[in-house]
Amino acid sequence: MNFVGSDLLTVDQLSRDDLEQIMSVARRMEPIARREKVTRVLEGAVLASLFLEASTRTRLSFGSAFSRLGGAVRETVGLTFSSMAKGESIADTARVISGYADIMTIRHPEAGSVAQFAKASLVPVINAGDGAAEHPTQALLDIYTIEEEFAARDKQLDGAHVLFVGDLKYGRTVHSLLKLLSLYESMTFTLLAPDLLSMPTSIVELVESRGHKVVEYDSMPTEPDRVDVIYATRIQRERLQGEQIEGYSHDFHVNTAFVEHVGDSSTIVMHPLPRDSTPSSNDLSTDLDADPRLAIFRQTDRGIPIRMALFALILGVADSIESTYRDPLWHTTT
Amino acid sequence: MNFVGSDLLTVDQLSRDDLEQIMSVARRMEPIARREKVTRVLEGAVLASLFLEASTRTRLSFGSAFSRLGGAVRETVGLTFSSMAKGESIADTARVISGYADIMTIRHPEAGSVAQFAKASLVPVINAGDGAAEHPTQALLDIYTIEEEFAARDKQLDGAHVLFVGDLKYGRTVHSLLKLLSLYESMTFTLLAPDLLSMPTSIVELVESRGHKVVEYDSMPTEPDRVDVIYATRIQRERLQGEQIEGYSHDFHVNTAFVEHVGDSSTIVMHPLPRDSTPSSNDLSTDLDADPRLAIFRQTDRGIPIRMALFALILGVADSIESTYRDPLWHTTT
Amino acid sequence: MNFVGSDLLTVDQLSRDDLEQIMSVARRMEPIARREKVTRVLEGAVLASLFLEASTRTRLSFGSAFSRLGGAVRETVGLTFSSMAKGESIADTARVISGYADIMTIRHPEAGSVAQFAKASLVPVINAGDGAAEHPTQALLDIYTIEEEFAARDKQLDGAHVLFVGDLKYGRTVHSLLKLLSLYESMTFTLLAPDLLSMPTSIVELVESRGHKVVEYDSMPTEPDRVDVIYATRIQRERLQGEQIEGYSHDFHVNTAFVEHVGDSSTIVMHPLPRDSTPSSNDLSTDLDADPRLAIFRQTDRGIPIRMALFALILGVADSIESTYRDPLWHTTT
Repeated sequence: MNFVGSDLLTVDQLSRDDLEQIMSVARRMEPIARREKVTRVLEGAVLASLFLEASTRTRLSFGSAFSRLGGAVRETVGLTFSSMAKGESIADTARVISGYADIMTIRHPEAGSVAQFAKASLVPVINAGDGAAEHPTQALLDIYTIEEEFAARDKQLDGAHVLFVGDLKYGRTVHSLLKLLSLYESMTFTLLAPDLLSMPTSIVELVESRGHKVVEYDSMPTEPDRVDVIYATRIQRERLQGEQIEGYSHDFHVNTAFVEHVGDSSTIVMHPLPRDSTPSSNDLSTDLDADPRLAIFRQTDRGIPIRMALFALILGVADSIESTYRDPLWHTTT
Repeated sequence: MNFVGSDLLTVDQLSRDDLEQIMSVARRMEPIARREKVTRVLEGAVLASLFLEASTRTRLSFGSAFSRLGGAVRETVGLTFSSMAKGESIADTARVISGYADIMTIRHPEAGSVAQFAKASLVPVINAGDGAAEHPTQALLDIYTIEEEFAARDKQLDGAHVLFVGDLKYGRTVHSLLKLLSLYESMTFTLLAPDLLSMPTSIVELVESRGHKVVEYDSMPTEPDRVDVIYATRIQRERLQGEQIEGYSHDFHVNTAFVEHVGDSSTIVMHPLPRDSTPSSNDLSTDLDADPRLAIFRQTDRGIPIRMALFALILGVADSIESTYRDPLWHTTT
Repeated sequence: MNFVGSDLLTVDQLSRDDLEQIMSVARRMEPIARREKVTRVLEGAVLASLFLEASTRTRLSFGSAFSRLGGAVRETVGLTFSSMAKGESIADTARVISGYADIMTIRHPEAGSVAQFAKASLVPVINAGDGAAEHPTQALLDIYTIEEEFAARDKQLDGAHVLFVGDLKYGRTVHSLLKLLSLYESMTFTLLAPDLLSMPTSIVELVESRGHKVVEYDSMPTEPDRVDVIYATRIQRERLQGEQIEGYSHDFHVNTAFVEHVGDSSTIVMHPLPRDSTPSSNDLSTDLDADPRLAIFRQTDRGIPIRMALFALILGVADSIESTYRDPLWHTTT
């Protein structure tokens, strides 16, 4: 796709070449994200960041990425805008606010609402999550993480084996990521989830139609194939309630024993975060926190260069990054 | 008035010359507002934007305008400040926060409160709306819109005919705008409203005392004079309740038929927004959305150059705009 | 201490030399705080300002200080983050957000929480207040105020007599300030409070162990020694309730008569603000508002250069301030 001036609403817009282009620009953002360089390439540009559903870290990540490029961020957070409470349509709200900004990031609790905003907006819109539907920048930072972790281990993403575990039914993150991974070659996917939280058939069929191998389990096999990536997800406890006892066993609890069982020394462990630290949650264990295979914080850090890359591509400055580098005067280590 | 260092609290402060000066500076802001130029003329300056009543779009518009000039925006939103909850006076709050900023924009639900803030503040204050009393920047962007729309149609504001329709009793917007329009020459005003929502007599008398013609109707006349501007307002339904059936008829519903009845091809349609899209609201119809006479979105867009102009005038940089222009590196079209 | 890259969590970290260094840098920030100079020394740096408890003025003061240095501020306000509501630990939240920023300011309602954040953060953390425990930047701006007010009166802080009055039991402000003042030489402290709000013994003993004189009263003495500083505090009425009548008399009400009784023409009156303007509160009287000895607003203003100094020291740019000065284009007086 031609990124300049375009919306980013869904991962379905992206080809393999698009992915490569985004990753390539993200890599060139790393010196800024690592605080070795600064730039003001977006000087004078305004991001309107509209979060109609709370998501502190996603909002801060988008905002920081725009700030790192030298742009200004104007924000609003809340279940609704005051104007919408007075009966204003999404189309009017979007059109009005788009007159104040050069690009918008929008989070909305309802699937499809961000696309409605984008349709009426004068300026490009990036979907920062709309209900259960889409959260494309999360999937992109996940892909970028796998690429970078693999590169550090002299591995290729094509042909890799990725295991998804946990809530594969409701988690939009895994749906989008699986779609993007299916743009690579000869992948193997293991899906480990209780029946009531299994991956929707339509997505499995899409992935298979692209020539990949998909294996589904509802409990941990005794002799699993070795995997390259373990992608754990948070169980949304409010959705399980009484069914928890039957459906969700310790088999789905990703901890050191789990990683030893399905992985090896080059396996990485990912999670979209937040992870639930409540002891009964069975979410990703903290017993891996000192393990170099745990990539979850490198993963969230990579949201910054990925979002910088998207802003740079959409606002037409991806080729101007290096020429605008400056050395920062500040530093935090002696 | 001398704008440098002054508060802007009410349209009553403004003469015809002041209006001309504000419009002139706003026009010079257009290259920045249209993203053709960027500036850092307010580099180092801080706006404290205090919204003690929610108004997302007004807050974003002020913030974007300040950002476009290169200044930093520090904000607070909420019904009260934490300090006020502990018994702090408006005077103390205003004095303290004014020590952190170079200019303040304040929205407050109570009439007169912004003037109290301004009295205790060390720095200039712009009223961003105080209850039913004043919202001077809305009236200024309305005047600027009429001027610009007329200029594009080779028309003059002096001598024009402006129709106000809807809630003319409670809408602070129409009161302030009517006062500003009465600074022009030989105007005609048609006021179309049900009796219970008619324009306050004091304002009608003020306008007439300045030599203008005012005609009031409580229903649409069969053969109205042709008007140059239709200014529609949102009916605040919570104020009408049971009275709605008797008082508020389809006569006040601005749609294509209404415009054809009172206007011609050069008539423009304005509205302070938001418009109520609830079907029963009888607010400004969407059937005009593709009609070039509908100026409502150009109107809200013009809030940016108007607010930039006010910041520039009050902070003494109105004459430095062109000399600080730079070309942006970014763009959103190919 | 070596400030570069360090957290600032408690005044207990600071030596007398550290105080002198902070004050010295703060003085060099004054031309910027007074709007005579601007700088972009923190260009490209991002502050994450996390207020898990509302404190509008402290948040705005930190934010403005960072803006004045040319950095970008990303904020969040609220009782919890959306991720914490999903069971995320403080350690995870801190680690994630620290990946988006170069420094963090954190306010939290629970004592010790900010230290937990700091432990997991990749970047330095400044404590912006954690419950009843610590608020080190308030104590620092208080010290800076006394230093500057004394310098203007040709007085020295060493050997001075400081009177604290009001709630000396619960107010973290007076505890931290007393600790810092005890780093000076040969001080005298008068503590005037009803028994139920008297200074904790542990702090009195610490101060005495450093060789200072401490005198405690539960009512105003008839012939008090003359004091150099009166530091008044707000009584947190919710803590007193029925006991108010017995314990808290007019003796503790700082007004002109009080100042005349214990001070002279060079005495200064301070208060951490907000002061409670409710008539029955007996908080610092407004009858002193025109008195040049009332230093409360100069005190709050000095939060800006103090916080600028801390940011500059921790981010390693304290020596680069003068070399990055520019003249602002804007001004607010004619």
